[in-house]
Amino acid sequence: MRLLSAIAREPLDRPPVWFMRQAGRYLPEYREVRSRHSFQDAVRDPAIASAITLQPWRRFDVDAAIIFSDIMTPLEGLGIDVAFTPGPTLDPMTIGEVAALDSLDSGAVDFVGEAIGLVRNHLPDDRAVIGFAGAPVTLAAYLLEGGGSKTFLQLRRAVIGDPEATSDALMSLGRSMHTYLGSQIAAGADVVMLFDSWAGMLSRDEWERFALPAARAALDGLDAPTIYFAPHGPHLLDSVAAVGADAYGVDWRLPLDEAWRRIGHDHAIQGNLDPAVLLTDPATVRSATERVLNEAAGRPGHIFNLGHGIDRATPIDNVAAMVATVKGERP
Amino acid sequence: MRLLSAIAREPLDRPPVWFMRQAGRYLPEYREVRSRHSFQDAVRDPAIASAITLQPWRRFDVDAAIIFSDIMTPLEGLGIDVAFTPGPTLDPMTIGEVAALDSLDSGAVDFVGEAIGLVRNHLPDDRAVIGFAGAPVTLAAYLLEGGGSKTFLQLRRAVIGDPEATSDALMSLGRSMHTYLGSQIAAGADVVMLFDSWAGMLSRDEWERFALPAARAALDGLDAPTIYFAPHGPHLLDSVAAVGADAYGVDWRLPLDEAWRRIGHDHAIQGNLDPAVLLTDPATVRSATERVLNEAAGRPGHIFNLGHGIDRATPIDNVAAMVATVKGERP
Repeated sequence: MRLLSAIAREPLDRPPVWFMRQAGRYLPEYREVRSRHSFQDAVRDPAIASAITLQPWRRFDVDAAIIFSDIMTPLEGLGIDVAFTPGPTLDPMTIGEVAALDSLDSGAVDFVGEAIGLVRNHLPDDRAVIGFAGAPVTLAAYLLEGGGSKTFLQLRRAVIGDPEATSDALMSLGRSMHTYLGSQIAAGADVVMLFDSWAGMLSRDEWERFALPAARAALDGLDAPTIYFAPHGPHLLDSVAAVGADAYGVDWRLPLDEAWRRIGHDHAIQGNLDPAVLLTDPATVRSATERVLNEAAGRPGHIFNLGHGIDRATPIDNVAAMVATVKGERP
Repeated sequence: MRLLSAIAREPLDRPPVWFMRQAGRYLPEYREVRSRHSFQDAVRDPAIASAITLQPWRRFDVDAAIIFSDIMTPLEGLGIDVAFTPGPTLDPMTIGEVAALDSLDSGAVDFVGEAIGLVRNHLPDDRAVIGFAGAPVTLAAYLLEGGGSKTFLQLRRAVIGDPEATSDALMSLGRSMHTYLGSQIAAGADVVMLFDSWAGMLSRDEWERFALPAARAALDGLDAPTIYFAPHGPHLLDSVAAVGADAYGVDWRLPLDEAWRRIGHDHAIQGNLDPAVLLTDPATVRSATERVLNEAAGRPGHIFNLGHGIDRATPIDNVAAMVATVKGERP
């Protein structure tokens, strides 16, 4: 399995390629399915979720399929109602309320495991199924704000003003996400990824004190390779390997070679083409893709990916040009 | 003038203190004025704008007053209609349209200079008046999106896909902002600050190629000390001094001492208390303020400020505790 080999830093003739939000609105076949089903109905129905998960593999023959779901999905299993409008929306919680949440009953979200099982059955043996969860700090950021935010000030206020309750809340979410990721592995996920989308809002000292132990609680002891990704976090790169994951995602802000050196070459790296590149034209896409490959310099352990999720306005031809370039196919 | 001495890195008994968005919604006297005048009417009326500008000085006796205005205000002088809802909203432009804009006719926004003159007349001689402008990359980010964005993908697409038109557009905006800042200095501003709020969305290489020369065009040759601030930009710190400003703002993501070392001790630094601290309580505020002062370690050239604009929900007592701590007053 090419993705697993890359994570194990084995030599490969080319890096594996997949990309964040690859099963999403830029795909006409995705929009077709979503014209008939709401986002949450699609996530909750294993047949629909697995079909969507496979769409980018069918179209681009990518090396991995990440389960169609959302980082907020397992919060249902904690008794939290989340609407998608289209971003997550919920009643804001206090940090004490988050700390008092029960542990995850993964049976409440076993539709995710069922979807993973269906994907694993359809996908060739050499392609990986990726499960995922939101990292505790990122989940708490949404729970405290009641949705998205440009600043996530409530998280930052909790970290500063109520550090003990914040640690309790994050460790509790970490244990629940550990249960959730374990259930995805049991269902057939070959790799799991922890998305810490808003960890970069914290200072490095706060990240080390709050985000790091909670991310470790989510990942430690899982029976599959792990990837940790904190976008918008160039200030965290020197510290991030303390998470203990096998691979680290990096956004587009620093060259891949510099980011890899700062994380450490004893870990695999995943990234880091700016998704804005995919809004240009195939020639520009090929040249920017080659630049990332050149920065990786064939070093074992590179997983080609974007530096952030693909944009919904992305032309299909540009995605095809990116994948073909990674595969060494001439235009 | 304490602020000018700090920018010149002269020894002082304590750093000057002011803070971003200090004339804003957290102040009851600001809300009172705004209950009678729209944001844009207040900005355009020199009597109202100067009165608002002076409010935080009257209440907290801070060392500087930054003119009440918006980075989008001078775009009026380029023939662009901007509404505030409350963030800036306008018809999205192409990068070619931005490049084709005329140079700023600063007479079209001379109400800003009039307000600065009124503030200068009211403020004691030892307090500074700060003028400001948006940096070209940040202005272009808003112009291309037609307002705010979490990703500013249109800016990133332009940089990648249309680099020559983007350079032209940014240099044109840089020249216009040079004119605008010069007019503020002529009107009485003692210091000018260039806000590059979204420069951190660019990779470091892109920042060096696009943001840097345009920021230099805005600042080079001005007849007053200058401050450059790119929040969300820890990946830019090693390069930022190439802007040629006298002082650099830093956000809350790295300790002040580390950020200062990376920028270079031959420049003054402004920052970097997380505004989330001001959402807690006076004891926490005092302790966090002292931590920033300890990181600055009395080194000449520190301007105490926040790492980002103050939040509208901030309690007044917390602001007073911060200012008193910087001034060495016991609670």
